[in-house]
Amino acid sequence: MKYPNSGKVYEKPNVSASNRGMSLEEDINKTNRYYRNEDIAVIHKKPTPVTIVKVDYPKRSAAKIVEAYFKLPSTTDYNGIYMGKYIDFEAKECESATSFPFSSIHAHQIQHLRDVIKHGAIAFIILRMTHYDEDFLIKAYDFIQFYDAGKRKSLPYRWITENGFLIPKTYTKPCDYLLIVKKVFEL
Amino acid sequence: MKYPNSGKVYEKPNVSASNRGMSLEEDINKTNRYYRNEDIAVIHKKPTPVTIVKVDYPKRSAAKIVEAYFKLPSTTDYNGIYMGKYIDFEAKECESATSFPFSSIHAHQIQHLRDVIKHGAIAFIILRMTHYDEDFLIKAYDFIQFYDAGKRKSLPYRWITENGFLIPKTYTKPCDYLLIVKKVFEL
Repeated sequence: MKYPNSGKVYEKPNVSASNRGMSLEEDINKTNRYYRNEDIAVIHKKPTPVTIVKVDYPKRSAAKIVEAYFKLPSTTDYNGIYMGKYIDFEAKECESATSFPFSSIHAHQIQHLRDVIKHGAIAFIILRMTHYDEDFLIKAYDFIQFYDAGKRKSLPYRWITENGFLIPKTYTKPCDYLLIVKKVFEL
Repeated sequence: MKYPNSGKVYEKPNVSASNRGMSLEEDINKTNRYYRNEDIAVIHKKPTPVTIVKVDYPKRSAAKIVEAYFKLPSTTDYNGIYMGKYIDFEAKECESATSFPFSSIHAHQIQHLRDVIKHGAIAFIILRMTHYDEDFLIKAYDFIQFYDAGKRKSLPYRWITENGFLIPKTYTKPCDYLLIVKKVFEL
């Protein structure tokens, strides 16, 4: 078994987290472009939250940020509209073959999922199990129920396969999650 | 008549644009916090989009971004959910007493408003006319119709007062736009 980059995670939490998510992020962005171009849905990734401290203004060129820091996100990374419904989700890659640790999702993001569910959102998590090259859609409601039960500190892979929904991949839609959303949320 | 900071706008487009919007942005953020705390709606401002070029990792302290640039936004600044509906809007301050120039809104943002309208969003613009200290909600649909007519390069103040809806301000809700949304979009 291989766990690429596993050592980096705790040294540089902010950046490694975004590196780890890179290829899932690219797949989702590509799929979202397809959805938008085909008038299926409008869903975007939010920009990485950054606290800007210092900006230089060189003459005749663009303003340059010279000091800034990563901020903890207060919401999930993706939201938008599909079939008139508000869509909200977080995407995570998981390198472990056995379970997805809750420490990979910020408390703020879980609170955000609770909040939007209360207001009628279609809310979920896309989890890429890199070891198996499988992407799962997990309803935020199911995730939170398991999380709140408080019995474990991670989602076991078995739970994921039994409660999650495998997301199909095609060349134009490398993470075709709306196909699953439509069925699972009965839209 | 006073036009505060009017000279800055064209020298430093990226940053002055966000400076100009600062106090409206603060008012909307404060109002959004009230909405969230009172379980009325979950609406967030998206982070400022930034292209990160170089990051330093000092020992025992947080990763520091040392080179980054502002990116043009590809969507509006705010979105979220209210009464089960997808909400999407852009907020702008206007210093001119006579009209709001279309050059203040990026083409991408107008396209984004078209896209989300097509999918059933509640979409609008919040426009603060700083000279009069008035905030207006303008339906994105009305804005786009006027924009597409192509007869002018700005929204005249008179058009704004006739077609926009004045947004009430209170201490806890300094820009209580959902009160207007509920009426105007008949929710």
